[in-house]
Amino acid sequence: MSSGSEASAGADLAFGVDIGGTKVLGVAVDARGQIVAESRVPTPTGPVRAGEEGVAVAAAVAEVVGELHSLSSADEPGSVPVGVGVPGMLTRQGRLQFSPNLPQGRGVDWNELLRQHLPGRRVEVENDANVAALAEHRLGAAKGYDHAVVVTLGTGIGGGLIVDGRVQAGAHGFAGEIGHMVVDPAGPPCPCGRRGCWERYASGAGLGLLAREAALAGELPDVVARAGGDPERVRGEDVTAAAHDGDAGARLVLAQVGWWVGFGLANLACVTDPECFVVGGGLVAAGEVLLNSACQAFADLVEGGDMRPQTAIVAAAFGDRAGAVGAALAVRAGGLW
Amino acid sequence: MSSGSEASAGADLAFGVDIGGTKVLGVAVDARGQIVAESRVPTPTGPVRAGEEGVAVAAAVAEVVGELHSLSSADEPGSVPVGVGVPGMLTRQGRLQFSPNLPQGRGVDWNELLRQHLPGRRVEVENDANVAALAEHRLGAAKGYDHAVVVTLGTGIGGGLIVDGRVQAGAHGFAGEIGHMVVDPAGPPCPCGRRGCWERYASGAGLGLLAREAALAGELPDVVARAGGDPERVRGEDVTAAAHDGDAGARLVLAQVGWWVGFGLANLACVTDPECFVVGGGLVAAGEVLLNSACQAFADLVEGGDMRPQTAIVAAAFGDRAGAVGAALAVRAGGLW
Repeated sequence: MSSGSEASAGADLAFGVDIGGTKVLGVAVDARGQIVAESRVPTPTGPVRAGEEGVAVAAAVAEVVGELHSLSSADEPGSVPVGVGVPGMLTRQGRLQFSPNLPQGRGVDWNELLRQHLPGRRVEVENDANVAALAEHRLGAAKGYDHAVVVTLGTGIGGGLIVDGRVQAGAHGFAGEIGHMVVDPAGPPCPCGRRGCWERYASGAGLGLLAREAALAGELPDVVARAGGDPERVRGEDVTAAAHDGDAGARLVLAQVGWWVGFGLANLACVTDPECFVVGGGLVAAGEVLLNSACQAFADLVEGGDMRPQTAIVAAAFGDRAGAVGAALAVRAGGLW
Repeated sequence: MSSGSEASAGADLAFGVDIGGTKVLGVAVDARGQIVAESRVPTPTGPVRAGEEGVAVAAAVAEVVGELHSLSSADEPGSVPVGVGVPGMLTRQGRLQFSPNLPQGRGVDWNELLRQHLPGRRVEVENDANVAALAEHRLGAAKGYDHAVVVTLGTGIGGGLIVDGRVQAGAHGFAGEIGHMVVDPAGPPCPCGRRGCWERYASGAGLGLLAREAALAGELPDVVARAGGDPERVRGEDVTAAAHDGDAGARLVLAQVGWWVGFGLANLACVTDPECFVVGGGLVAAGEVLLNSACQAFADLVEGGDMRPQTAIVAAAFGDRAGAVGAALAVRAGGLW
């Protein structure tokens, strides 16, 4: 599956690929940061044989890069470098120590694996949320802010911290793993092995969970119909589509998810005190209901309320492409740090 | 109430005063950062008439400074500068916007008020937890770490973030308000106006709350005896004293508070990824039971567990004096930022 226009060739072209829980999304970015081509394939999932961790995913990245190569028709396409964003706890050396949303890639040295799959290309691997923050800070909604948090609401929740005008990695490269703040020790199990992580409530996965609960309670007949009649099979996309068509039950579920988004942002404001939050990722495509609810919950819940200067909560300029664009910017810059 | 040895006079002497929820603690610090005199008085509390916000507290600070002056016998004692740490959301200009643990000082321009009460002295006002972090980073347990979080467990919880070797204020000076991360939206009410803040569980106030719950359930006969027989009057100090004497019930309550400490540290590790946590404040005087329990809970709860490099959790070198020492260092340096 792909889309994209014929791109102008150029020495400053860079490819960026964002490996997500559900899709591998690639973009070709020109010298001005414009997206000139795009390609996406589903993320390979399922059991992996020992010794083959990450191999199918790396092949999907190579497929996306091959398509970007064809679309971009660069003079020397083999020389276009590739930045790759990976979700989870990635060391500064490129090893994925832990990844609830990419378990099939855990323990892999992604720098090494991707260089094998992309021979002749310069490859740079970074945490997906950190490169998303880079894109929004350089060219998007966080531009001009010295203190910002870029929150990516996808399958899980990614976070990139801008402190004093720079993306912060923390001591080991793991800063911004904000989706795994526990907000209820007795909450639902999380793929990370614990319970009640923020991303159980405020992500695409959280939307699905809350929607299935409501569907099983008989509150979402229209959404259940879209899911083929089985409340257990309701997905986030069914809710988003029904809400878009005005279904009140679906809009209520989105508002609940938005409340949890605002709740977590209020906690983050206590810790990091940013000037703004930039919220991106697939879930923001759910639209204004979710983001308005998040803003209201944040205002109600943040410490000091109206005694503190207003903290902006804005939609990401790059939507769900921020990670891919940022990965391209990172490889062009020779790395994030 | 005071203690302290006769201090050597010197041009490099600085006074530091930490305004806490229960006590105003002052120290005189020499050029090497050594404490050469100490003074403390209870923090004035209770209702305040309009227009007199903070005045009684400022007078207590002046009393402490007067005593440090007498004890330090500097050649020109009037010229010794005074750094002051204040709890809560303090703007970079020195106005206290919000302070759950010093409500009588809210809305006050502390720079102006303290200059009135300390005529002829240079005065520097900073957030208490930020100066505690400065002391521990320059001279104490966080020395040598570029990424650390200094956590002060007093009446509430203060936090100071070290990022890239510097204390971080955030966009408005409010970074590190970690005690008001909500860890249970349905939890007990907090003086900040919300429910379930981390400091309802993991501070001196939290220890008192958990202890009174256990006492009312009949689980702490020895502790209740120390409190004069009334379970409703049990204070944190009664628990600490009983635990020190080996009381099993009291040790269990301290271990519960330690679990909550470790729980919050695990959340903070997700966000900021420090090399170490330095834990100080009055509650650490409760001893090893609490800190051991915090370390165990952190190891159990932190994302990635043994897949991440070990994060040290160590006791503050300055105990409950870190804020006062850091305030002295800050005024000598001409400010934190």
